[in-house]
Amino acid sequence: MSQRKRTEIAELGEFGLIDHLTRNATTSSKHTLRGVGDDAAVVAAGRNDATVISTDTLLEGIDFDLTYFPLKHLGYKAVVVGVSDILAMNALPEQVMISIGVSAKLPVEALEDLYEGVDFACKELGVDLVGGDTTASMTGLVINITAIGRAKRKALSYRSGAQFNDLICLTGNLGAAYLGLQLLEREKRVLKDVANPEPQFAGYEYLLQRYLKPRARKDIVDILAEEKIVPTSMIDISDGLASEVLQICKASKCGARIYLDRIPIAKQTTALAEEMHIDPVVAALNGGGDYELLFTVPLAMQEQVMRLGVVDVVGHITRETTGAYLVTPDGSDIKLRAQGFKEE
Amino acid sequence: MSQRKRTEIAELGEFGLIDHLTRNATTSSKHTLRGVGDDAAVVAAGRNDATVISTDTLLEGIDFDLTYFPLKHLGYKAVVVGVSDILAMNALPEQVMISIGVSAKLPVEALEDLYEGVDFACKELGVDLVGGDTTASMTGLVINITAIGRAKRKALSYRSGAQFNDLICLTGNLGAAYLGLQLLEREKRVLKDVANPEPQFAGYEYLLQRYLKPRARKDIVDILAEEKIVPTSMIDISDGLASEVLQICKASKCGARIYLDRIPIAKQTTALAEEMHIDPVVAALNGGGDYELLFTVPLAMQEQVMRLGVVDVVGHITRETTGAYLVTPDGSDIKLRAQGFKEE
Repeated sequence: MSQRKRTEIAELGEFGLIDHLTRNATTSSKHTLRGVGDDAAVVAAGRNDATVISTDTLLEGIDFDLTYFPLKHLGYKAVVVGVSDILAMNALPEQVMISIGVSAKLPVEALEDLYEGVDFACKELGVDLVGGDTTASMTGLVINITAIGRAKRKALSYRSGAQFNDLICLTGNLGAAYLGLQLLEREKRVLKDVANPEPQFAGYEYLLQRYLKPRARKDIVDILAEEKIVPTSMIDISDGLASEVLQICKASKCGARIYLDRIPIAKQTTALAEEMHIDPVVAALNGGGDYELLFTVPLAMQEQVMRLGVVDVVGHITRETTGAYLVTPDGSDIKLRAQGFKEE
Repeated sequence: MSQRKRTEIAELGEFGLIDHLTRNATTSSKHTLRGVGDDAAVVAAGRNDATVISTDTLLEGIDFDLTYFPLKHLGYKAVVVGVSDILAMNALPEQVMISIGVSAKLPVEALEDLYEGVDFACKELGVDLVGGDTTASMTGLVINITAIGRAKRKALSYRSGAQFNDLICLTGNLGAAYLGLQLLEREKRVLKDVANPEPQFAGYEYLLQRYLKPRARKDIVDILAEEKIVPTSMIDISDGLASEVLQICKASKCGARIYLDRIPIAKQTTALAEEMHIDPVVAALNGGGDYELLFTVPLAMQEQVMRLGVVDVVGHITRETTGAYLVTPDGSDIKLRAQGFKEE
């Protein structure tokens, strides 16, 4: 390849890269209902139903650090990461498959811990572990989760369905998982050379839990079904609010306005952010790992959505030409930017 | 974990390990038709159909060496590895999803090559690329393939259906992929310190092709459908004949006798094996990577199967108590052993 142009991955960014690489992907099977570009692929299952399938890879050193990430939690989190993609389609998770690449240096007992977490999450979320394998790894631990779910076709929420004037709704609060990670990293640095390290987590247990044992918001998909609400679009917060809003805008060919003072941030998040000189809003926008759900509904549903008591309306959909902005309390507009391989 | 017992992965072996870890996996969803323990999981799709889903991880340094594995071929092979699992269920592949963990050091052009191979395989096999993502990797290249297929439920072949006296049938020939790998490894060693290496592959092109660009035997599943033959059991040859026969025996609770002189081995395989002082039968039994199909049919179908012209009958199913053996031309029996993390 010595004669060829060399383009750095950072030039395209993570999302630009996958769009670029899959630009030729076309679908031809009559059973393929949705291909690349959403939280999960969608294939036909009978006349009215659909099977949704997602895949995620977690890599040691990138997605987790075994110095402080208990393997049981990691197994649990792997299932949540997969299931969250299914929920983001407004579908219900039914099965997961776990593939593991593992160094022969890890003892069987460590993998037992990992699978204990997998089993626990499966039971809690009502999904079946239906497959997977283990292979040798030369380097770090590699975990792949394939999650499978099901929905009525007409109940599916794609990223591409947001409409002008739709409300942008958000479950839970943001930034806590990112701050939990920052806390763990800080204690790791501080206690690097200490013989019997006793990390100081008092008062921040909630943040640790949000990072090490995030919830999959199956309760939300259940509530939406009970209330007969089908979001016009939906995505889960894995990369941060900014990135997810931009994904909806791109897929739906629309713009968005997010109001900074409406972004829900937990007290512990604000407290630790202050202590660590981090802007909690930046943590919410770009931190990621919250696995909350972001969805849009028509403006007319405002009252119905508010009555649920489990979502905040954080903004609304605008025309594509308007772009996607964060609106600060003093009324200034800040253009939303996504993060990935590089900070754009 | 200092107080806990430490069990080495090698003590259980690869297959023992995954059985051990998934021993508590039970299924509760009415849509889960088959869970762990086969080439793919099976979920309901309408009243008569099923969706089959498999997942495989390919790791740099374990499953491929980028020194000599062209990325275009690697993308192609990744799809074949996934699709082969679907075919092994007697199902037809329809979709694949590819997840890649990649070091930022690789240029975009390298990933374009990889995806060119993916696209080529998808077109050749008639499957849609429906998803995937790229994430940063701290270490080597990590590729995960999720393959999705479909079949009439009653046409599915599980590993568990082999019956006493069934014929054991095999497509193609074995050991070629393993010898192709040995050839590439030899040239890599020999040319390690050479400035402009010119590896010598003349006469062994077929072996390289079998390793670098294996075929997925979709033709076989098509022929079986045309002939209305539903194998009583089926598996693909990813780990070697010995391992796959043992998997069928374990799942079907039966024994097997494989006749050494009936194992099809290509001329180039025998020639290079001789040159490299490798027993070609050992390559066939334990080499793996051939992605041929191994299946069983009732004894009464012998003539019909032979007439297909694309399979060899290499043995037959016996009682479980008899065990699984390789029968040599002089009539002696050698117990079949699987390989995995360790040579058992």
